[in-house]
Amino acid sequence: MKLTAGMALPRRKTSEKLLMGPGPSNVSARVLSALGEPIIGHLDADFLDIMTETKELLQYVFQTENELTLALPGTGSAGMEAAWANTVLPGDKVIVCVHGVFGQRMTDVASRYGAEVIKVESPMGKPIDPEMLAAAIKANPDAKIVGIVHAETSTGVLQPMDEIAKLTHDAGMFLLVDCVTSLGGVEVPVDKLAFDMTYSGTQKCLNCPPGLAPMTVSKPMADWIRARQIPVKNWYLDLNMIMRYWGEDRFYHHTAPINMIYALNEALRIILEEGIEKRWERHWANARRFWGALEAMGMKLVVEEKYRLPSLTTYYTPDGVNEAAVRNYLMDKYKIEIGGGLGELKGKIHRVGLMGVNSDPARMALFIAALGDALKAQGCKCDVNAALDIING
Amino acid sequence: MKLTAGMALPRRKTSEKLLMGPGPSNVSARVLSALGEPIIGHLDADFLDIMTETKELLQYVFQTENELTLALPGTGSAGMEAAWANTVLPGDKVIVCVHGVFGQRMTDVASRYGAEVIKVESPMGKPIDPEMLAAAIKANPDAKIVGIVHAETSTGVLQPMDEIAKLTHDAGMFLLVDCVTSLGGVEVPVDKLAFDMTYSGTQKCLNCPPGLAPMTVSKPMADWIRARQIPVKNWYLDLNMIMRYWGEDRFYHHTAPINMIYALNEALRIILEEGIEKRWERHWANARRFWGALEAMGMKLVVEEKYRLPSLTTYYTPDGVNEAAVRNYLMDKYKIEIGGGLGELKGKIHRVGLMGVNSDPARMALFIAALGDALKAQGCKCDVNAALDIING
Repeated sequence: MKLTAGMALPRRKTSEKLLMGPGPSNVSARVLSALGEPIIGHLDADFLDIMTETKELLQYVFQTENELTLALPGTGSAGMEAAWANTVLPGDKVIVCVHGVFGQRMTDVASRYGAEVIKVESPMGKPIDPEMLAAAIKANPDAKIVGIVHAETSTGVLQPMDEIAKLTHDAGMFLLVDCVTSLGGVEVPVDKLAFDMTYSGTQKCLNCPPGLAPMTVSKPMADWIRARQIPVKNWYLDLNMIMRYWGEDRFYHHTAPINMIYALNEALRIILEEGIEKRWERHWANARRFWGALEAMGMKLVVEEKYRLPSLTTYYTPDGVNEAAVRNYLMDKYKIEIGGGLGELKGKIHRVGLMGVNSDPARMALFIAALGDALKAQGCKCDVNAALDIING
Repeated sequence: MKLTAGMALPRRKTSEKLLMGPGPSNVSARVLSALGEPIIGHLDADFLDIMTETKELLQYVFQTENELTLALPGTGSAGMEAAWANTVLPGDKVIVCVHGVFGQRMTDVASRYGAEVIKVESPMGKPIDPEMLAAAIKANPDAKIVGIVHAETSTGVLQPMDEIAKLTHDAGMFLLVDCVTSLGGVEVPVDKLAFDMTYSGTQKCLNCPPGLAPMTVSKPMADWIRARQIPVKNWYLDLNMIMRYWGEDRFYHHTAPINMIYALNEALRIILEEGIEKRWERHWANARRFWGALEAMGMKLVVEEKYRLPSLTTYYTPDGVNEAAVRNYLMDKYKIEIGGGLGELKGKIHRVGLMGVNSDPARMALFIAALGDALKAQGCKCDVNAALDIING
């Protein structure tokens, strides 16, 4: 369409939908309303107060006392970029654990900053075996960083972190952790296990629109970044400048995404009101019922129960069912969005998020009823009654 | 303050203010309301339609038919980063024109990607002299790119581009232009002068919150980027992947800042309704009155009239006046934000933006009255009557 002056365009098609895919998740009215608060300057004293409070709220949600805790001006992917850009020097050896698409992406990002990447791999749907990491560390004692995804959004695996953290620190290496799909839904033991570099996104369990990357950096890692002699090969995400904007200097670097910070502030307040531990418990309790319900319908879950991520469930679609047709049916008839598989799981699985406000029995019941209907339309009958009984306890 | 579960925090201090600094500018209620529309998925067919329409609106505002036109998921600074990250190979020679802080920043950004930077400099407050660029091109015929700031936010200079563009193209080099403070307020002659790489921000003359960087790339530049053999040393801003998300592939790269895209879409619709040429005329007409009014008050403008930027005016504060105290007075009493000087102009000048909705006689009159009052409080009397008469025609 050729646009000309004075032309009025049709309404944007932005109706309410139930976003139970791998993200973005739904955003509550309180957060949408915060987004629309009047804009003030990025160096206005009132805005600086909002930044300080947002930093304290992020420390609460990350359960950390790390001084260097902030929100980067980009999506969760910018968090991954900043994590590697700031910590790698050209030629550094790093170990990256790959058990899905986002671990694989880490190898790409780290390589672009000149890292020599040693991969530790697990098949999609399984966590990283600590013994394999131990072997990689033994073979590469000169590696500087171990990078790993805590919650693999491509598979629904929650990586146990205790042994991984111990092995990394015993070897004197830094631990870099992707918590995009865990923060705010599952415990992220930043201080407890001494994660050195941890980042997340806003559009998963925080129920805030995408556009910011919460990040927290341990003191040893922050000291290393401050002391690095070679400039960070990324001006926009250079923590040595960004930390001065979030710190007491209030040094001008970029113009903060002001209204997005309002939204994040409100989303974090909602978590504080609920209490982070209660929120984790809610995610676990609802997920367990959800898994039971899916199994009662005859679905086979992708991940073994002890490694399952409460905020994102994956199951194989039944043989003979066109998984994309099921997703289209759910969107067309119920306005429910879920995700399909990525990589080698494409066409084989569904990914369903129970993130923040969507970790909710009513929404789970609606999804189960809708899925039963969609499968029936594909000639596949399931026991929806039994599944709903499990959700309703 | 130690945050604990269940704690309720005081209201965020986000009241209406008049943002007449160098940005962010005010955002209209229509755009704030668009920000708060319900979130839908970043691969939802309805969202892809919004992206396509936003791309067409950006083509209209950039006055270009460039196929590669999009909004990057970061602020205007991310636009600068992406411009250099995608076009520089390590060891490339580039010429950067420096007539203020943002030209200086270009030299830093380009260097981080391995460019050998040749600087062409003008004093702050003056534009680049094309003869100096011609000399630099003659001395460096192997340079690949000429980078320049169209509207220097640190000084209020509007760089004439005709000769710069001709010199660059005659030498077979690519032209990279920063239009952060011109787009939507002053003509950005992308196709007319064949700019190769052009980027902007949303928080200036577009009257949209900060968080996105509109960008448009010429066909020769896009072809060069597609053909480059060395991967872009920045995964997040790699146009070879991002162009596939904005193009027909709809390849997943990052999760678009969905609600920010709604806001940009609405802000661009407002420009379409007014008509881009009318908008430029309005910015020029209001700026000329504003300059006359300031001069009637006895202010000395920093930039010679023929190089003045309509969207950002700079003047020296009178001798003996504490410029920061004036700005604080304007904020405390009138809730008006303006900017101070940067670099060598720090403490000497004010920067006042008339951007988009703020290029408006009523807001100009309020500012003039408030400035007169603030200067009086500093013991400096000005002829406010004469200034207001000029604004009122």
